[in-house]
Amino acid sequence: MNNIFQWHYVKRLCFERTRDALIPKHDGLAIRGVSETVVGVLGGGQLGLMLCQAANQMAIKVVTLDPLESCPASGIAYHHVVGSFDDGDTVHEFAKRCGVLTVEIEHVDAVSLEKLELLGIDCQPKASTIRIIQDKYLQKVHFSQHGIPLPDFMEIDNLAHVEKAGELFGYPLMIKSKRLAYDGRGNAVAYTKEELPSVVTALGGFDHGLYVGRWMPFVKVEELSVIVARARDKSVSCFPVVETIHKDNICHIVEAPASVLLNEVAPRPHNSGHHKIESCYTSQCEQHLQAILGLPLGDPSLKSPAAIMYNILGEDEGEPGFYLAHQLIGKALNIPGASVHWYDKPEMRKLRKMGHITIVGPSKNIVNARLDSLLEGKTPGSHGVSQ
Amino acid sequence: MNNIFQWHYVKRLCFERTRDALIPKHDGLAIRGVSETVVGVLGGGQLGLMLCQAANQMAIKVVTLDPLESCPASGIAYHHVVGSFDDGDTVHEFAKRCGVLTVEIEHVDAVSLEKLELLGIDCQPKASTIRIIQDKYLQKVHFSQHGIPLPDFMEIDNLAHVEKAGELFGYPLMIKSKRLAYDGRGNAVAYTKEELPSVVTALGGFDHGLYVGRWMPFVKVEELSVIVARARDKSVSCFPVVETIHKDNICHIVEAPASVLLNEVAPRPHNSGHHKIESCYTSQCEQHLQAILGLPLGDPSLKSPAAIMYNILGEDEGEPGFYLAHQLIGKALNIPGASVHWYDKPEMRKLRKMGHITIVGPSKNIVNARLDSLLEGKTPGSHGVSQ
Repeated sequence: MNNIFQWHYVKRLCFERTRDALIPKHDGLAIRGVSETVVGVLGGGQLGLMLCQAANQMAIKVVTLDPLESCPASGIAYHHVVGSFDDGDTVHEFAKRCGVLTVEIEHVDAVSLEKLELLGIDCQPKASTIRIIQDKYLQKVHFSQHGIPLPDFMEIDNLAHVEKAGELFGYPLMIKSKRLAYDGRGNAVAYTKEELPSVVTALGGFDHGLYVGRWMPFVKVEELSVIVARARDKSVSCFPVVETIHKDNICHIVEAPASVLLNEVAPRPHNSGHHKIESCYTSQCEQHLQAILGLPLGDPSLKSPAAIMYNILGEDEGEPGFYLAHQLIGKALNIPGASVHWYDKPEMRKLRKMGHITIVGPSKNIVNARLDSLLEGKTPGSHGVSQ
Repeated sequence: MNNIFQWHYVKRLCFERTRDALIPKHDGLAIRGVSETVVGVLGGGQLGLMLCQAANQMAIKVVTLDPLESCPASGIAYHHVVGSFDDGDTVHEFAKRCGVLTVEIEHVDAVSLEKLELLGIDCQPKASTIRIIQDKYLQKVHFSQHGIPLPDFMEIDNLAHVEKAGELFGYPLMIKSKRLAYDGRGNAVAYTKEELPSVVTALGGFDHGLYVGRWMPFVKVEELSVIVARARDKSVSCFPVVETIHKDNICHIVEAPASVLLNEVAPRPHNSGHHKIESCYTSQCEQHLQAILGLPLGDPSLKSPAAIMYNILGEDEGEPGFYLAHQLIGKALNIPGASVHWYDKPEMRKLRKMGHITIVGPSKNIVNARLDSLLEGKTPGSHGVSQ
């Protein structure tokens, strides 16, 4: 019985066992995918997962690095490596096995990436880009130097600075962390001069790296999102603009394109682009792979007249959270044009992104109505939606 | 170094090591996908691969059984088992680990499946359906009993039978194997009575199980393909009808729907439905999974006005074959609306299905013109195309 019925650990067999020879192999054969370059991704969350899904169709080999053994990408990556993507040695070991190194998150060790580039490792995006993007203050300085319209901002190093900013910009005053700020984290509001010290402390103090931004009166709780891919030959491809509706107060004015202020930039696939898997000729993850691998960029236009994407956020911790998410998925499976994506994260936490649902259809009204019927009984606007 | 940088074999860790306890686990946690049922697939070729791709998005766990360790599905299945899906004991061991058992190919051991069903294992499709479908003669008897229009046919057990058939149907006479007949294999033509013995021998003799079909005058080298899904609650969902153009002379008359004769039926996802991944709200593999798992069926309608699918068949053996396929893929990446699927089969053989290209676009003329530009310089009609 044992002879006919063997459980084979295929991925394991693709690698030699000695530590210094962990070179991907395909049973001794060359890699035959659409590209022969092995793609390394720092991070194995849902964006790493979707990169693997896009790669798999083209038989492109993606290896992922993430501290979590059971992260979403682990089950589908050509190989998954457990380790910190914020640790120089780990990233170096990992990079040696990849033909090109990319990220699903910009909060990686940019100094290590710069060293890797000097050793000839191909990082896409470049370390210099990541260094700018991961520091929201540097990002704003960079865009401002290039004439991009932004809300007013200034760096703050001590209490005198922030008080000066309060005088210049008025109150309420938005105080922000330069780094590790996303999904509303790293932002806090001081409504008076007296609140400044406690708000600064709540954000980790001046040593943590802070800046202030002028408070913007919110006309709409929406943002526009534009996803652009640039290929190695510098050709550029722009996906259709989408509106995003955020929860909480991490939002900015959007009216007509002319008066839009830049909020943030990510050098990677983005949550606001998940709907492209179903709605565009090329998904953002396909485009990212094609861009970093030097392949021609795909057609970014919509193949369906309308699409709306809904983030499945944890509504509760643990079991009750899973129960609520699965109730929603059950409803979604009955909605025409709905595709359910479940990231298979082992732990359910409140407000954690656990999956998403994309509804594609013949018109914006129709997809909106379908989303309404899906969310019937839920608090309106309580979840992240892109359309 | 070894401590921070561990290559983890994630799939391996999901299973206990003792032979009698190979039960899928998720690090001790329950399976949290859109369905908690583990799907077993007999066969790990490109259809098994596409079932895994569809399942992955919903975090549905698919385990595959295939004699080849490096079959297309092996790299993406939740678990891949090496073994023959035509062997009763192997299939039984495999089935014990699955909540529902399905097939990517109907040439499996139907008698074993019938036994498994008696043991309470849930086979979808049922063993009785597979038994009918895998024997083309039984299939035709079944359809004929249900009033489905078919070309004339009769069973042949000996030379007198086949000579009688020649008198009844005239020449040329199409002689066919009852079993293991697909993609033109298992068919041969006798142009005269004198050729009958050699044609019978070429097909393996009467013991192999043969029947004859009346020769059909070919008006078009096209077939229509209709993919229908039936859910567990007996609800039925029908994908849009497509035309298929075949190579060689394995084709049948298709004119208007009223005069179409049934050719064959497959109880599984089919090559003629690959384009649905890009062109329909629900792909055939998603639909198959939803049907066998008792989930609601998805919307089968087209989300894009037109689509055409081109099979990448091996044009040569080995390296030269890979070279030609990669040249074609390189061209396809420059065609708007084209998606490249590469099955990652380790061996290239002439006429073997190695991948496919789907072109989706705003009209039939446009996608046809894009395919023409892709195939410029190739012999027209030399490949399998569905549109």
